[in-house]
Amino acid sequence: MNLIILFEQDFLSDRTVRLTDDRFNHIKKIHRSEKGNTVKVGQLNGLIGSGVISEIADTYVDIEVTLTDAPPPKLPLTIILSLPRPKMIRRIFRSITELGVEQLIIINSNKVEKSFWQSPALNPENVDNYLIAGLQQAKDTVPPKVTFKRLFKPFVEDELPSLMTDSQGFIAHPGIGHACPHAFNQRSVLAIGPEGGFTDYEVNKLIDAGFNGIHLGERILRVENAVTALTSKLYQ
Amino acid sequence: MNLIILFEQDFLSDRTVRLTDDRFNHIKKIHRSEKGNTVKVGQLNGLIGSGVISEIADTYVDIEVTLTDAPPPKLPLTIILSLPRPKMIRRIFRSITELGVEQLIIINSNKVEKSFWQSPALNPENVDNYLIAGLQQAKDTVPPKVTFKRLFKPFVEDELPSLMTDSQGFIAHPGIGHACPHAFNQRSVLAIGPEGGFTDYEVNKLIDAGFNGIHLGERILRVENAVTALTSKLYQ
Repeated sequence: MNLIILFEQDFLSDRTVRLTDDRFNHIKKIHRSEKGNTVKVGQLNGLIGSGVISEIADTYVDIEVTLTDAPPPKLPLTIILSLPRPKMIRRIFRSITELGVEQLIIINSNKVEKSFWQSPALNPENVDNYLIAGLQQAKDTVPPKVTFKRLFKPFVEDELPSLMTDSQGFIAHPGIGHACPHAFNQRSVLAIGPEGGFTDYEVNKLIDAGFNGIHLGERILRVENAVTALTSKLYQ
Repeated sequence: MNLIILFEQDFLSDRTVRLTDDRFNHIKKIHRSEKGNTVKVGQLNGLIGSGVISEIADTYVDIEVTLTDAPPPKLPLTIILSLPRPKMIRRIFRSITELGVEQLIIINSNKVEKSFWQSPALNPENVDNYLIAGLQQAKDTVPPKVTFKRLFKPFVEDELPSLMTDSQGFIAHPGIGHACPHAFNQRSVLAIGPEGGFTDYEVNKLIDAGFNGIHLGERILRVENAVTALTSKLYQ
Protein backbone atom coordinates (compact mmCIF):
# COMPACT_ATOMS: atom_id res chain seq x y z
CA MET A 1 0.00 0.00 0.00
CA ASN A 2 2.00 2.94 -1.33
CA LEU A 3 -0.95 5.33 -1.04
CA ILE A 4 -3.98 5.14 1.23
CA ILE A 5 -7.17 5.81 -0.71
CA LEU A 6 -9.70 7.94 1.17
CA PHE A 7 -13.46 7.80 0.55
CA GLU A 8 -16.01 10.55 1.20
CA GLN A 9 -17.42 8.69 4.19
CA ASP A 10 -13.98 8.66 5.89
CA PHE A 11 -14.06 12.43 6.43
CA LEU A 12 -15.04 13.60 9.92
CA SER A 13 -14.48 17.19 8.77
CA ASP A 14 -12.89 18.98 5.84
CA ARG A 15 -9.41 17.84 6.78
CA THR A 16 -9.77 15.00 9.27
CA VAL A 17 -10.38 11.37 8.31
CA ARG A 18 -11.03 8.39 10.56
CA LEU A 19 -10.06 4.93 9.31
CA THR A 20 -11.24 1.70 10.95
CA ASP A 21 -10.79 -1.03 8.34
CA ASP A 22 -7.87 -2.67 6.52
CA ARG A 23 -6.28 0.71 6.07
CA PHE A 24 -6.23 1.19 9.84
CA ASN A 25 -4.69 -2.25 10.27
CA HIS A 26 -2.11 -1.49 7.64
CA ILE A 27 -1.08 1.76 9.32
CA LYS A 28 -1.05 0.25 12.81
CA LYS A 29 0.29 -3.28 12.22
CA ILE A 30 2.35 -3.20 9.06
CA HIS A 31 3.72 0.36 9.10
CA ARG A 32 3.64 0.42 12.92
CA SER A 33 2.96 4.15 12.65
CA GLU A 34 2.53 6.37 15.68
CA LYS A 35 0.95 9.70 16.46
CA GLY A 36 2.78 12.40 14.52
CA ASN A 37 3.91 10.11 11.70
CA THR A 38 3.11 11.00 8.13
CA VAL A 39 1.34 8.77 5.62
CA LYS A 40 0.70 9.21 1.90
CA VAL A 41 -2.99 9.59 1.11
CA GLY A 42 -5.22 10.37 -1.86
CA GLN A 43 -8.95 10.93 -2.21
CA LEU A 44 -10.76 8.58 -4.57
CA ASN A 45 -11.06 10.41 -7.91
CA GLY A 46 -9.36 13.40 -6.27
CA LEU A 47 -6.07 14.86 -5.14
CA ILE A 48 -3.04 13.21 -3.56
CA GLY A 49 -1.20 14.52 -0.52
CA SER A 50 -0.05 13.60 2.92
CA GLY A 51 -1.63 12.99 6.27
CA VAL A 52 -0.36 13.39 9.81
CA ILE A 53 -1.64 10.90 12.36
CA SER A 54 -3.40 12.88 15.07
CA GLU A 55 -4.67 9.94 17.11
CA ILE A 56 -4.14 6.20 16.94
CA ALA A 57 -6.48 4.11 19.08
CA ASP A 58 -7.24 0.39 19.37
CA THR A 59 -9.86 0.43 16.64
CA TYR A 60 -9.26 3.54 14.59
CA VAL A 61 -6.77 6.10 13.43
CA ASP A 62 -7.46 9.81 12.86
CA ILE A 63 -5.42 11.61 10.24
CA GLU A 64 -5.16 15.31 9.35
CA VAL A 65 -4.84 15.37 5.59
CA THR A 66 -3.52 17.95 3.14
CA LEU A 67 -4.40 17.12 -0.46
CA THR A 68 -2.44 19.08 -3.04
CA ASP A 69 -1.30 17.09 -6.07
CA ALA A 70 -3.10 15.83 -9.15
CA PRO A 71 -2.95 12.07 -9.70
CA PRO A 72 -0.79 10.79 -12.57
CA PRO A 73 -2.47 11.11 -15.99
CA LYS A 74 -4.30 8.09 -17.38
CA LEU A 75 -3.08 6.31 -20.50
CA PRO A 76 -5.41 7.18 -23.42
CA LEU A 77 -6.20 3.49 -23.72
CA THR A 78 -9.38 1.43 -23.64
CA ILE A 79 -8.81 -2.31 -23.22
CA ILE A 80 -11.51 -4.66 -24.50
CA LEU A 81 -10.85 -7.94 -22.75
CA SER A 82 -12.60 -11.28 -23.08
CA LEU A 83 -13.71 -12.32 -19.61
CA PRO A 84 -10.69 -14.08 -18.06
CA ARG A 85 -10.69 -17.24 -16.00
CA PRO A 86 -11.99 -16.25 -12.51
CA LYS A 87 -8.72 -16.90 -10.70
CA MET A 88 -7.05 -14.33 -13.00
CA ILE A 89 -9.70 -11.62 -12.66
CA ARG A 90 -8.41 -10.05 -9.47
CA ARG A 91 -4.83 -9.78 -10.70
CA ILE A 92 -5.77 -8.54 -14.15
CA PHE A 93 -8.11 -5.85 -12.81
CA ARG A 94 -5.41 -4.75 -10.36
CA SER A 95 -2.77 -4.68 -13.07
CA ILE A 96 -4.92 -2.69 -15.48
CA THR A 97 -5.47 -0.16 -12.72
CA GLU A 98 -1.77 -0.06 -11.80
CA LEU A 99 -0.83 0.54 -15.42
CA GLY A 100 -3.14 3.56 -15.63
CA VAL A 101 -5.53 2.26 -18.31
CA GLU A 102 -8.45 4.66 -18.75
CA GLN A 103 -11.22 2.22 -19.52
CA LEU A 104 -11.78 -1.55 -19.37
CA ILE A 105 -14.61 -3.25 -21.24
CA ILE A 106 -15.09 -6.92 -20.42
CA ILE A 107 -16.77 -8.82 -23.24
CA ASN A 108 -17.97 -12.31 -23.92
CA SER A 109 -16.23 -14.45 -26.55
CA ASN A 110 -16.91 -17.85 -27.98
CA LYS A 111 -14.11 -19.43 -25.95
CA VAL A 112 -15.11 -17.89 -22.61
CA GLU A 113 -16.66 -20.60 -20.44
CA LYS A 114 -20.23 -19.57 -19.55
CA SER A 115 -19.63 -20.39 -15.88
CA PHE A 116 -17.01 -17.64 -15.65
CA TRP A 117 -19.82 -15.08 -15.72
CA GLN A 118 -21.15 -16.48 -12.43
CA SER A 119 -17.87 -15.92 -10.60
CA PRO A 120 -18.06 -14.02 -7.30
CA ALA A 121 -14.97 -12.17 -8.54
CA LEU A 122 -17.38 -10.12 -10.69
CA ASN A 123 -19.50 -8.87 -7.77
CA PRO A 124 -19.35 -5.07 -7.92
CA GLU A 125 -17.92 -4.88 -4.40
CA ASN A 126 -15.09 -7.27 -5.30
CA VAL A 127 -14.36 -5.44 -8.54
CA ASP A 128 -14.15 -2.16 -6.62
CA ASN A 129 -11.71 -3.74 -4.18
CA TYR A 130 -9.42 -4.95 -6.99
CA LEU A 131 -9.38 -1.46 -8.50
CA ILE A 132 -8.70 0.20 -5.13
CA ALA A 133 -5.83 -2.23 -4.53
CA GLY A 134 -4.35 -1.21 -7.88
CA LEU A 135 -4.68 2.48 -7.03
CA GLN A 136 -3.05 1.98 -3.63
CA GLN A 137 -0.14 0.18 -5.29
CA ALA A 138 0.38 2.64 -8.13
CA LYS A 139 -0.21 5.87 -6.14
CA ASP A 140 -3.17 6.86 -8.25
CA THR A 141 -6.69 7.94 -7.24
CA VAL A 142 -8.70 7.45 -10.44
CA PRO A 143 -9.79 3.88 -11.23
CA PRO A 144 -10.43 2.77 -14.81
CA LYS A 145 -14.06 2.87 -15.92
CA VAL A 146 -15.10 -0.80 -16.00
CA THR A 147 -18.13 -2.10 -17.94
CA PHE A 148 -19.37 -5.55 -18.95
CA LYS A 149 -20.83 -6.44 -22.36
CA ARG A 150 -22.16 -9.97 -22.56
CA LEU A 151 -23.28 -9.83 -26.18
CA PHE A 152 -20.34 -9.70 -28.59
CA LYS A 153 -22.13 -8.86 -31.84
CA PRO A 154 -24.34 -5.96 -30.64
CA PHE A 155 -21.38 -4.53 -28.78
CA VAL A 156 -19.08 -4.62 -31.81
CA GLU A 157 -21.73 -3.43 -34.27
CA ASP A 158 -23.61 -0.85 -32.23
CA GLU A 159 -21.32 0.43 -29.48
CA LEU A 160 -17.77 0.06 -30.77
CA PRO A 161 -18.04 2.58 -33.64
CA SER A 162 -18.49 5.53 -31.26
CA LEU A 163 -15.38 4.43 -29.29
CA MET A 164 -13.38 4.33 -32.51
CA THR A 165 -14.03 7.85 -33.76
CA ASP A 166 -10.82 9.25 -32.24
CA SER A 167 -8.90 6.02 -31.61
CA GLN A 168 -6.74 3.50 -33.38
CA GLY A 169 -8.02 -0.04 -32.86
CA PHE A 170 -5.63 -2.93 -32.22
CA ILE A 171 -6.50 -6.58 -31.92
CA ALA A 172 -3.83 -8.69 -30.23
CA HIS A 173 -3.89 -12.12 -31.82
CA PRO A 174 -1.01 -14.52 -32.41
CA GLY A 175 0.14 -14.61 -36.01
CA ILE A 176 -1.86 -11.75 -37.51
CA GLY A 177 -0.76 -8.28 -38.54
CA HIS A 178 2.45 -6.71 -37.31
CA ALA A 179 4.56 -6.87 -34.18
CA CYS A 180 3.03 -4.67 -31.47
CA PRO A 181 4.25 -1.10 -32.07
CA HIS A 182 6.41 0.61 -29.46
CA ALA A 183 5.60 3.98 -27.91
CA PHE A 184 2.48 4.47 -30.03
CA ASN A 185 1.27 6.91 -27.37
CA GLN A 186 -1.90 7.95 -29.24
CA ARG A 187 -5.45 7.17 -28.16
CA SER A 188 -6.21 3.52 -28.84
CA VAL A 189 -8.62 0.66 -28.22
CA LEU A 190 -6.89 -2.67 -27.66
CA ALA A 191 -8.82 -5.95 -27.92
CA ILE A 192 -7.37 -9.00 -26.15
CA GLY A 193 -8.95 -12.44 -26.53
CA PRO A 194 -9.51 -15.25 -24.04
CA GLU A 195 -7.03 -18.03 -23.23
CA GLY A 196 -7.92 -20.02 -26.35
CA GLY A 197 -7.89 -16.85 -28.49
CA PHE A 198 -10.61 -15.09 -30.47
CA THR A 199 -12.41 -17.20 -33.10
CA ASP A 200 -11.95 -16.32 -36.78
CA TYR A 201 -15.45 -14.83 -36.75
CA GLU A 202 -14.54 -12.55 -33.84
CA VAL A 203 -11.23 -11.53 -35.40
CA ASN A 204 -13.01 -10.67 -38.66
CA LYS A 205 -15.73 -8.68 -36.90
CA LEU A 206 -13.07 -6.57 -35.17
CA ILE A 207 -11.07 -6.14 -38.38
CA ASP A 208 -14.30 -5.06 -40.13
CA ALA A 209 -14.73 -2.53 -37.31
CA GLY A 210 -11.35 -1.02 -38.25
CA PHE A 211 -9.00 -2.89 -35.89
CA ASN A 212 -5.44 -3.76 -36.96
CA GLY A 213 -3.86 -7.06 -35.96
CA ILE A 214 -0.80 -6.91 -33.70
CA HIS A 215 1.13 -9.74 -32.06
CA LEU A 216 3.87 -10.37 -29.49
CA GLY A 217 5.95 -12.77 -31.58
CA GLU A 218 6.19 -16.54 -31.39
CA ARG A 219 5.73 -16.78 -27.64
CA ILE A 220 2.20 -17.18 -26.28
CA LEU A 221 1.89 -15.24 -23.02
CA ARG A 222 -0.72 -15.83 -20.36
CA VAL A 223 -3.47 -13.22 -20.66
CA GLU A 224 -2.32 -11.32 -17.57
CA ASN A 225 1.20 -11.07 -18.96
CA ALA A 226 -0.05 -10.11 -22.43
CA VAL A 227 -2.08 -7.23 -20.97
CA THR A 228 0.99 -5.75 -19.27
CA ALA A 229 3.32 -6.48 -22.21
CA LEU A 230 1.04 -4.87 -24.82
CA THR A 231 0.23 -1.81 -22.69
CA SER A 232 3.90 -1.31 -21.83
CA LYS A 233 4.99 -1.51 -25.45
CA LEU A 234 2.24 0.83 -26.74
CA TYR A 235 2.72 3.64 -24.24
CA GLN A 236 5.41 6.07 -23.10
CA MET B 1 -0.30 -26.03 -21.91
CA ASN B 2 0.38 -24.90 -25.49
CA LEU B 3 3.36 -27.22 -25.85
CA ILE B 4 4.12 -30.45 -24.01
CA ILE B 5 7.72 -30.51 -22.81
CA LEU B 6 9.45 -33.88 -23.20
CA PHE B 7 12.33 -35.05 -21.00
CA GLU B 8 15.01 -37.59 -21.89
CA GLN B 9 13.49 -40.18 -19.59
CA ASP B 10 10.16 -40.00 -21.45
CA PHE B 11 11.65 -41.62 -24.55
CA LEU B 12 10.98 -45.35 -25.01
CA SER B 13 12.85 -45.21 -28.30
CA ASP B 14 14.18 -42.56 -30.67
CA ARG B 15 10.73 -41.41 -31.63
CA THR B 16 8.29 -42.80 -29.08
CA VAL B 17 7.57 -41.19 -25.71
CA ARG B 18 5.41 -42.48 -22.88
CA LEU B 19 3.82 -39.95 -20.53
CA THR B 20 2.24 -40.89 -17.19
CA ASP B 21 2.11 -37.69 -15.15
CA ASP B 22 0.33 -34.32 -15.38
CA ARG B 23 1.04 -34.24 -19.07
CA PHE B 24 -0.84 -37.52 -19.51
CA ASN B 25 -3.75 -36.12 -17.48
CA HIS B 26 -3.75 -32.97 -19.54
CA ILE B 27 -3.90 -34.88 -22.82
CA LYS B 28 -6.53 -37.33 -21.60
CA LYS B 29 -8.76 -35.18 -19.39
CA ILE B 30 -8.40 -31.61 -20.60
CA HIS B 31 -7.74 -32.07 -24.30
CA ARG B 32 -9.78 -35.32 -24.34
CA SER B 33 -7.43 -36.53 -27.04
CA GLU B 34 -7.79 -39.93 -28.68
CA LYS B 35 -5.56 -42.31 -30.58
CA GLY B 36 -4.53 -40.66 -33.86
CA ASN B 37 -4.83 -37.09 -32.53
CA THR B 38 -1.89 -34.73 -32.83
CA VAL B 39 -0.30 -32.77 -29.98
CA LYS B 40 2.37 -30.08 -29.99
CA VAL B 41 5.56 -31.24 -28.28
CA GLY B 42 9.11 -30.01 -27.68
CA GLN B 43 12.17 -31.61 -26.12
CA LEU B 44 13.65 -29.76 -23.14
CA ASN B 45 16.53 -27.67 -24.51
CA GLY B 46 15.82 -29.14 -27.93
CA LEU B 47 13.57 -29.01 -30.97
CA ILE B 48 9.84 -28.45 -31.26
CA GLY B 49 7.50 -30.55 -33.37
CA SER B 50 4.36 -32.61 -33.25
CA GLY B 51 3.35 -35.97 -31.88
CA VAL B 52 0.69 -38.44 -32.92
CA ILE B 53 -0.97 -40.42 -30.13
CA SER B 54 -0.32 -44.09 -30.83
CA GLU B 55 -1.91 -45.50 -27.68
CA ILE B 56 -3.90 -44.01 -24.85
CA ALA B 57 -4.44 -46.24 -21.83
CA ASP B 58 -5.78 -45.70 -18.31
CA THR B 59 -2.43 -44.65 -16.89
CA TYR B 60 -0.28 -43.58 -19.81
CA VAL B 61 -0.20 -42.23 -23.32
CA ASP B 62 2.30 -43.18 -26.03
CA ILE B 63 3.16 -40.60 -28.64
CA GLU B 64 5.18 -40.85 -31.87
CA VAL B 65 7.06 -37.57 -32.10
CA THR B 66 8.67 -35.69 -34.98
CA LEU B 67 10.88 -32.83 -33.79
CA THR B 68 11.82 -30.36 -36.50
CA ASP B 69 11.79 -26.70 -35.45
CA ALA B 70 14.17 -24.59 -33.40
CA PRO B 71 12.64 -22.93 -30.33
CA PRO B 72 12.12 -19.14 -30.46
CA PRO B 73 15.32 -17.18 -29.79
CA LYS B 74 15.98 -15.94 -26.27
CA LEU B 75 16.03 -12.24 -25.44
CA PRO B 76 19.66 -11.14 -24.87
CA LEU B 77 18.67 -10.14 -21.35
CA THR B 78 19.89 -11.04 -17.89
CA ILE B 79 17.55 -10.01 -15.09
CA ILE B 80 19.04 -9.47 -11.64
CA LEU B 81 16.10 -9.63 -9.27
CA SER B 82 15.95 -9.16 -5.51
CA LEU B 83 14.33 -12.25 -4.06
CA PRO B 84 10.58 -11.63 -4.26
CA ARG B 85 7.98 -12.40 -1.62
CA PRO B 86 7.42 -16.21 -1.73
CA LYS B 87 3.86 -16.02 -3.01
CA MET B 88 5.13 -14.11 -6.06
CA ILE B 89 8.04 -16.43 -6.86
CA ARG B 90 6.09 -18.96 -8.89
CA ARG B 91 4.41 -16.38 -11.07
CA ILE B 92 7.55 -14.31 -11.59
CA PHE B 93 9.68 -17.30 -12.55
CA ARG B 94 6.98 -18.46 -14.96
CA SER B 95 6.66 -14.98 -16.46
CA ILE B 96 10.39 -14.57 -16.93
CA THR B 97 10.42 -17.91 -18.75
CA GLU B 98 7.39 -16.98 -20.87
CA LEU B 99 9.01 -13.71 -21.89
CA GLY B 100 12.14 -15.51 -23.12
CA VAL B 101 14.65 -13.98 -20.72
CA GLU B 102 18.04 -15.68 -21.11
CA GLN B 103 19.27 -15.56 -17.54
CA LEU B 104 17.83 -14.82 -14.09
CA ILE B 105 20.04 -14.04 -11.12
CA ILE B 106 18.24 -13.85 -7.79
CA ILE B 107 20.08 -11.69 -5.27
CA ASN B 108 19.67 -10.62 -1.70
CA SER B 109 18.94 -6.99 -0.86
CA ASN B 110 18.62 -5.10 2.34
CA LYS B 111 14.82 -4.99 2.12
CA VAL B 112 14.41 -8.70 1.37
CA GLU B 113 13.01 -10.42 4.48
CA LYS B 114 15.46 -13.11 5.60
CA SER B 115 12.65 -15.66 5.95
CA PHE B 116 11.98 -15.47 2.20
CA TRP B 117 15.16 -17.48 1.62
CA GLN B 118 13.62 -20.42 3.51
CA SER B 119 10.59 -20.60 1.23
CA PRO B 120 9.80 -24.03 -0.25
CA ALA B 121 9.18 -22.14 -3.51
CA LEU B 122 12.97 -22.07 -3.87
CA ASN B 123 13.41 -25.86 -3.76
CA PRO B 124 15.13 -26.80 -7.01
CA GLU B 125 12.31 -29.14 -7.98
CA ASN B 126 9.73 -26.37 -7.53
CA VAL B 127 11.86 -23.88 -9.45
CA ASP B 128 12.17 -26.38 -12.32
CA ASN B 129 8.40 -26.82 -12.35
CA TYR B 130 7.81 -23.05 -12.60
CA LEU B 131 10.22 -22.83 -15.52
CA ILE B 132 8.65 -25.82 -17.29
CA ALA B 133 5.20 -24.28 -16.83
CA GLY B 134 6.50 -21.10 -18.49
CA LEU B 135 7.95 -23.07 -21.40
CA GLN B 136 4.71 -25.01 -21.88
CA GLN B 137 2.77 -21.73 -21.97
CA ALA B 138 5.12 -19.86 -24.31
CA LYS B 139 5.91 -22.77 -26.68
CA ASP B 140 9.59 -22.68 -25.88
CA THR B 141 11.97 -25.46 -24.84
CA VAL B 142 14.91 -23.56 -23.32
CA PRO B 143 14.47 -22.33 -19.74
CA PRO B 144 16.37 -19.31 -18.46
CA LYS B 145 19.54 -20.07 -16.54
CA VAL B 146 18.65 -19.40 -12.90
CA THR B 147 21.20 -18.76 -10.16
CA PHE B 148 21.03 -17.46 -6.58
CA LYS B 149 23.52 -15.02 -5.03
CA ARG B 150 22.92 -14.41 -1.37
CA LEU B 151 25.75 -11.94 -0.86
CA PHE B 152 25.10 -8.62 -2.58
CA LYS B 153 28.52 -6.99 -2.28
CA PRO B 154 30.74 -9.88 -3.48
CA PHE B 155 28.32 -10.51 -6.33
CA VAL B 156 28.35 -6.89 -7.49
CA GLU B 157 32.07 -6.42 -7.01
CA ASP B 158 33.47 -9.78 -8.15
CA GLU B 159 30.95 -11.39 -10.50
CA LEU B 160 29.02 -8.57 -12.13
CA PRO B 161 31.95 -7.05 -14.09
CA SER B 162 32.29 -10.13 -16.31
CA LEU B 163 28.56 -9.99 -17.11
CA MET B 164 28.89 -6.36 -18.11
CA THR B 165 31.66 -6.66 -20.70
CA ASP B 166 29.23 -6.90 -23.63
CA SER B 167 26.07 -5.56 -21.98
CA GLN B 168 24.37 -2.33 -21.06
CA GLY B 169 23.35 -2.30 -17.40
CA PHE B 170 20.01 -0.85 -16.32
CA ILE B 171 18.76 -0.40 -12.78
CA ALA B 172 15.02 0.07 -12.50
CA HIS B 173 14.33 2.39 -9.61
CA PRO B 174 11.56 4.95 -9.18
CA GLY B 175 12.69 8.51 -9.74
CA ILE B 176 16.24 7.97 -11.00
CA GLY B 177 17.64 8.27 -14.50
CA HIS B 178 15.46 8.27 -17.59
CA ALA B 179 12.20 6.68 -18.63
CA CYS B 180 12.77 3.04 -19.61
CA PRO B 181 13.90 3.02 -23.27
CA HIS B 182 11.75 1.34 -25.90
CA ALA B 183 13.02 -1.37 -28.26
CA PHE B 184 16.57 -1.17 -26.95
CA ASN B 185 17.06 -4.69 -28.33
CA GLN B 186 20.78 -4.90 -27.46
CA ARG B 187 22.30 -7.20 -24.84
CA SER B 188 21.53 -5.88 -21.37
CA VAL B 189 21.54 -6.65 -17.67
CA LEU B 190 18.49 -5.31 -15.83
CA ALA B 191 18.46 -5.00 -12.04
CA ILE B 192 15.07 -4.88 -10.30
CA GLY B 193 14.79 -4.26 -6.57
CA PRO B 194 12.52 -5.74 -3.91
CA GLU B 195 9.07 -4.43 -2.98
CA GLY B 196 10.49 -1.64 -0.83
CA GLY B 197 13.11 -0.79 -3.47
CA PHE B 198 16.91 -0.93 -3.41
CA THR B 199 18.63 1.06 -0.67
CA ASP B 200 20.72 4.08 -1.64
CA TYR B 201 23.83 1.98 -0.96
CA GLU B 202 22.65 -0.71 -3.37
CA VAL B 203 21.68 1.82 -6.04
CA ASN B 204 25.09 3.46 -5.76
CA LYS B 205 26.95 0.14 -5.93
CA LEU B 206 25.13 -0.71 -9.17
CA ILE B 207 25.70 2.76 -10.61
CA ASP B 208 29.41 2.39 -9.72
CA ALA B 209 29.31 -0.92 -11.62
CA GLY B 210 28.19 0.97 -14.73
CA PHE B 211 24.39 0.66 -14.48
CA ASN B 212 22.10 3.44 -15.71
CA GLY B 213 18.93 4.32 -13.82
CA ILE B 214 15.64 3.82 -15.63
CA HIS B 215 12.08 4.20 -14.36
CA LEU B 216 8.48 3.51 -15.34
CA GLY B 217 7.08 6.92 -14.49
CA GLU B 218 5.07 8.03 -11.48
CA ARG B 219 3.21 4.75 -11.02
CA ILE B 220 4.71 2.11 -8.76
CA LEU B 221 4.03 -1.33 -10.20
CA ARG B 222 4.10 -4.59 -8.27
CA VAL B 223 7.38 -6.40 -8.94
CA GLU B 224 5.76 -9.01 -11.17
CA ASN B 225 4.20 -6.32 -13.31
CA ALA B 226 7.41 -4.28 -13.41
CA VAL B 227 9.36 -7.31 -14.70
CA THR B 228 6.97 -7.75 -17.64
CA ALA B 229 6.64 -4.01 -18.31
CA LEU B 230 10.41 -3.37 -18.39
CA THR B 231 11.21 -6.45 -20.49
CA SER B 232 8.41 -5.61 -22.94
CA LYS B 233 9.56 -2.02 -23.36
CA LEU B 234 13.24 -2.92 -23.78
CA TYR B 235 12.82 -5.65 -26.40
CA GLN B 236 11.43 -6.07 -29.92
